Amino acid sequence: MPVGTQGTVKSLTPKDLEELGVSILLANAYHIYLQPGIEVVKELGGLHRFINWNGPILTDSGGFQIYSLGVLAKVKEEGVYFKSHLDGSSHFLSPELSIEIQHSLGADIIMTLDHCLAYPSDREMIAEAMRRSLRWAKRSYEEWKRLGPESHLLFGISQGGVYKDLREESIEGLLRIDFSGYALGGLSVGEPKEKMYEIIEFLSFLLPEEKPRYIMGLGAFDDLFQAIAAGYDMFDCVLPTRNARNGCLFTSRGKVVIKHSKYNKDPRPIDEECGCYTCRNFSRAYLRHLFVAKELLFPILATYHNLHFYLDTFRKIRQAIAKGEFTEYRERFLKRLNEGD
Amino acid sequence: MPVGTQGTVKSLTPKDLEELGVSILLANAYHIYLQPGIEVVKELGGLHRFINWNGPILTDSGGFQIYSLGVLAKVKEEGVYFKSHLDGSSHFLSPELSIEIQHSLGADIIMTLDHCLAYPSDREMIAEAMRRSLRWAKRSYEEWKRLGPESHLLFGISQGGVYKDLREESIEGLLRIDFSGYALGGLSVGEPKEKMYEIIEFLSFLLPEEKPRYIMGLGAFDDLFQAIAAGYDMFDCVLPTRNARNGCLFTSRGKVVIKHSKYNKDPRPIDEECGCYTCRNFSRAYLRHLFVAKELLFPILATYHNLHFYLDTFRKIRQAIAKGEFTEYRERFLKRLNEGD
Repeated sequence: MPVGTQGTVKSLTPKDLEELGVSILLANAYHIYLQPGIEVVKELGGLHRFINWNGPILTDSGGFQIYSLGVLAKVKEEGVYFKSHLDGSSHFLSPELSIEIQHSLGADIIMTLDHCLAYPSDREMIAEAMRRSLRWAKRSYEEWKRLGPESHLLFGISQGGVYKDLREESIEGLLRIDFSGYALGGLSVGEPKEKMYEIIEFLSFLLPEEKPRYIMGLGAFDDLFQAIAAGYDMFDCVLPTRNARNGCLFTSRGKVVIKHSKYNKDPRPIDEECGCYTCRNFSRAYLRHLFVAKELLFPILATYHNLHFYLDTFRKIRQAIAKGEFTEYRERFLKRLNEGD
Repeated sequence: MPVGTQGTVKSLTPKDLEELGVSILLANAYHIYLQPGIEVVKELGGLHRFINWNGPILTDSGGFQIYSLGVLAKVKEEGVYFKSHLDGSSHFLSPELSIEIQHSLGADIIMTLDHCLAYPSDREMIAEAMRRSLRWAKRSYEEWKRLGPESHLLFGISQGGVYKDLREESIEGLLRIDFSGYALGGLSVGEPKEKMYEIIEFLSFLLPEEKPRYIMGLGAFDDLFQAIAAGYDMFDCVLPTRNARNGCLFTSRGKVVIKHSKYNKDPRPIDEECGCYTCRNFSRAYLRHLFVAKELLFPILATYHNLHFYLDTFRKIRQAIAKGEFTEYRERFLKRLNEGD
């Protein structure tokens, strides 16, 4: 899922997203609640109409954003008191309010409000945040039922850091509530990869196969392959879009950091094997010029390419899985990725 | 002609420009000379291939940019000594070098190097700059003939401020050299509109009808209609693109300054009579949100609309001229433009 935090995937039009074959977008309830505000979106006919996107939208509950706010947020049992990152104004978000906001936006998949902690954190604090997340998940669920569960799917979010027993307790609690799908939160927040992989692997045996399994915020290819191998279905990450804006372009042979002077006169496309609009029409030399000259066309062409690379890789992964060739595909892909340009 | 100073119309792809029906682009030899440099563009197969634009390109000589540099430029008879606006490095540009640069870029229409002064300037200084521009025009012409005049058209640029006699001397001098087309420089640089209109009108009788007549830097609709009525054919201006980025959107009923809070929940498109991608798909409320949230999608959608509005108006002007209804169209257009929204 490409990330459209404020109701737009940065530097791309909905037409571009359709061309790229994007099937579902992620947007952030927290950001849209602050700007332009829920009333605006409601009055304009809901998020789909407002941003002109006809495909499915998943909204995040605001839990992760509150984690990102750090000292600007105070978590209590009733909910979170926080100050806006935009203007410092005071706000309150509860599990019920988060569901109400996401319901008003009209998203297709909505998420429970969770309490996420940084790595490393004290085990007791993590246990507490996990149990609070469970209680909030239950409250989110009740509010969803009350508002009309036919309008959207509700996914529960697991917490518990890198502790297997806490994660197990979290998943078991969520399973008792019975959500439309299950998400792992609080991963990829600074913990060692091996610990993250352990948790991903361990939880894959606890989650029901017949429901969507979503790891939030995962974006590096080695992590994605690891998670797909373990049976997870859904992912979102700012990596392809944010890196594009910073001049880091993904190719089948690793990253191209476009500002390097070696690309000054390089007539090749970003990736010679890529068939996207950017690669069919523009050289690295031109892209480097646009980047150095701080031209707005740079993020457009770079984001288009990076998203194409991600979506295309996922298409190929699905094909490989269908053919029973996932393991070979993964090995080949990662080997070439690390070969370099 | 939309302006693509650094080899890109800010925030649009060449595909967008084609969709919009752009027939010719303007690029600035001065900017491209400094970044990425002529060698890069030459090695990449010329400006058309470098920027992926198959239509005609007109390059400006650098005269106007040197005027913009102010104290960073020193004009001598042999040429201009100037410091880069990017890094302060020292450079020299002569009429011959400007033609050589534009020739290397492979533009379709190239311009003589001229010496432009701000308004108001001392009459004697303007006379001197005008005569220098004439001598430079002659040198530009000789260099063009030497390098291969079959590759591009060369337009001469007239100077002389708002003094009819100086302008007459300038045009007569240019006519003796015999260029492919004629441009008026040094207008729209701060002088009162009536004085500019007087000069435009006066010179229209001196310029040959069978050759293109181009007023540089003109962009306001009242000025454009005035110039078209006087028989001028070509124009360029940053107005539609720069204003778009600043949140000023053109409509058939005047400007929409999108940041105004009155557009907060406005479900209407920028211009209800406009059929462009932006107007077919997005509300003022969404565009305002994108502008306030500083999203990259804003300049994209805004530039697309503003350029569409300009190009569409020019298409309608051509139709009106063909039908002999230009005066009525002009009156109707300007009346509605001033009615407001």
